Amino acid sequence: MSFPTVGVIGAGQLARMMVPPAIDLGISLSLFAGASSESGAQIAPHTVGSLSNTGAVLEWASHCDVITFEHELIAPELILALEATGVKVFPKASSFTFSQNKLAMRKKMEELGLPNPSWQEYDGGTPEIEFPLIAKSISGGYDGRGVFKVNDLSELQSLHASIGQTILLEELLNFDYEIAIMVARSPQGQAATWAPTLTVQRDGICTQTVTPVPELSKALVAKTAQIALLIAQGIDLVGVMAVEIFVVGDHLIVNELALRPHNSGHWSIEGSVTSQFEQHLRAVLDLPLGDTALLAPYAVMGNVIGIETDKSNDLYRPYLHLMARSPGLKVHQYMKELRPGRKVGHVTLLGADLLHLRSEVSHAVDYLSGAIDE
Amino acid sequence: MSFPTVGVIGAGQLARMMVPPAIDLGISLSLFAGASSESGAQIAPHTVGSLSNTGAVLEWASHCDVITFEHELIAPELILALEATGVKVFPKASSFTFSQNKLAMRKKMEELGLPNPSWQEYDGGTPEIEFPLIAKSISGGYDGRGVFKVNDLSELQSLHASIGQTILLEELLNFDYEIAIMVARSPQGQAATWAPTLTVQRDGICTQTVTPVPELSKALVAKTAQIALLIAQGIDLVGVMAVEIFVVGDHLIVNELALRPHNSGHWSIEGSVTSQFEQHLRAVLDLPLGDTALLAPYAVMGNVIGIETDKSNDLYRPYLHLMARSPGLKVHQYMKELRPGRKVGHVTLLGADLLHLRSEVSHAVDYLSGAIDE
Repeated sequence: MSFPTVGVIGAGQLARMMVPPAIDLGISLSLFAGASSESGAQIAPHTVGSLSNTGAVLEWASHCDVITFEHELIAPELILALEATGVKVFPKASSFTFSQNKLAMRKKMEELGLPNPSWQEYDGGTPEIEFPLIAKSISGGYDGRGVFKVNDLSELQSLHASIGQTILLEELLNFDYEIAIMVARSPQGQAATWAPTLTVQRDGICTQTVTPVPELSKALVAKTAQIALLIAQGIDLVGVMAVEIFVVGDHLIVNELALRPHNSGHWSIEGSVTSQFEQHLRAVLDLPLGDTALLAPYAVMGNVIGIETDKSNDLYRPYLHLMARSPGLKVHQYMKELRPGRKVGHVTLLGADLLHLRSEVSHAVDYLSGAIDE
Repeated sequence: MSFPTVGVIGAGQLARMMVPPAIDLGISLSLFAGASSESGAQIAPHTVGSLSNTGAVLEWASHCDVITFEHELIAPELILALEATGVKVFPKASSFTFSQNKLAMRKKMEELGLPNPSWQEYDGGTPEIEFPLIAKSISGGYDGRGVFKVNDLSELQSLHASIGQTILLEELLNFDYEIAIMVARSPQGQAATWAPTLTVQRDGICTQTVTPVPELSKALVAKTAQIALLIAQGIDLVGVMAVEIFVVGDHLIVNELALRPHNSGHWSIEGSVTSQFEQHLRAVLDLPLGDTALLAPYAVMGNVIGIETDKSNDLYRPYLHLMARSPGLKVHQYMKELRPGRKVGHVTLLGADLLHLRSEVSHAVDYLSGAIDE
């Protein structure tokens, strides 16, 4: 045996954040990037190419020991073509589909006896689900994209017409809050979860996470882990996965799956003995999984999200103020251009005083993005 | 302001371990390496050249915002030449000399009123210090090299003849144990220490560290920090520095200084909110220093040291056993060829049960190096 090469399709910030644990463990990464300027490609060996060029992807993959993904926007045919060459691909095509196809995912949850919202396939006519409801593109959705709140039949019909194919309808839940749990599973079936995470959203984008979820009962924590482990086993997961869950009173309802390192697990870089990025590498390499214990009472993560501004795109100067104000703040730059609504970095702060942590993290991300001046 | 480039002279494992925090903070590194195969050069942008080619070093440095070092084996003239071009160099030549010249260091400690062992310059004749004693090369020593135990006059005279220049003699201390403390200081004079570290040596090589030092009294902990801060200020340190100290009863005696990230601070990568490598970058960039708090009751670090063996140089296969046995073990590979006596990696384990941590770390490094099979 010698140190392996992990091929990653995609070269955004999730690939970027795989680099430090790969360096530590002596694992080589090879990214398949759209451009050398991408977040991960700036700092790691990569091949530039198009995912529509199957031959180029297969040629690149032939130099890797295992292939994995950092986003869902990959044609299922490409994953199958990779598998057909005999190269190891994790997650497998048959698992990854539950991250890519929201209809297949709902059916799988039903099969596993896990809690779905009310849902139906929709091809026209009057839906069974009451308005207002949630309509989703079956594939191509990602990080809140392809998800719509629909108030009445005419809105639904015009949305359906614009999408031009079957869509998924789900009941609009009046949930108390949203949580996520990260789970890892290896080819041998070893699995591990981290503590569940509160995901705070604004306009459908996650702005802050709090781990563990404050005031989540022990019973619900255990149930969350149980759901994540059941799904991981049920879809034969290899790698890490985020399970997004709505909490409605004592009920947990599965919202989405993402079979990759996920924004709701970024806290684990500093907050856990083993980060989601190291764990993903360990899982796809069939290495034993690492300890997922927390290193502090709370880990609060905040996303730095671009705003409309005339100010210069300077994400370095803010260090002078922020590092002096919060000596424990950990900053992660994705080195992407600051554009409105785009995640360009995140910060994490560990500690025991949750109100203080949340307010410091909010301040830090707003100061970094330029939303506030002091 | 925009994201700066830090130039590092040297491309060994210390440069390698600066890479992850540089990635997080969006800082570019540029290493001046002897070869592309060196530990740090394998994973970071670098220029290959010889330190004896001053022109090449100055040309490389002109593309960096600040220059720093990862080892002491740099001609003082080269550092002065860099400073003469106006580029920022940290630590400064006038500080770095106390890391390079053991005689200048002893004189400086005396000037600062800090505790030296008995010492003298030696150019021949009968020494004032009693045998057995310690003899040191004044410059060129590094990690225990250039340090000799001398039993009698004839040994001393032949050593002196073989070195061919003035040497430094020091009393052989019957110390209780050796500790080290890391300290960081910025150009503005902000300074921060980490908890002192017990350094366990075998044949003059550090094999394991324990942080904080078990059973070191509060008074001695405070005195250790005070000594480190006094030296940092007294030599106008910029960057991080290790202060190695002998503990003799209630007395602390300064042994050596190393003005760079140091083996006795590796525990801080996982064990502290801010690692020595991140802190070094922050200091040389004149950014506010980070929190140096511990994240666990104890952090135990063990060096993976090459042994004489017929077995293959496989540092990856051991992961299968070690990661299953110690899910919290953090492995750092330097990706250097395994040679007898050479540090090729280290592992760190955090926790509260010190005996368990020390025995797991010992087992892990011996299993990695091939010294034990199970």
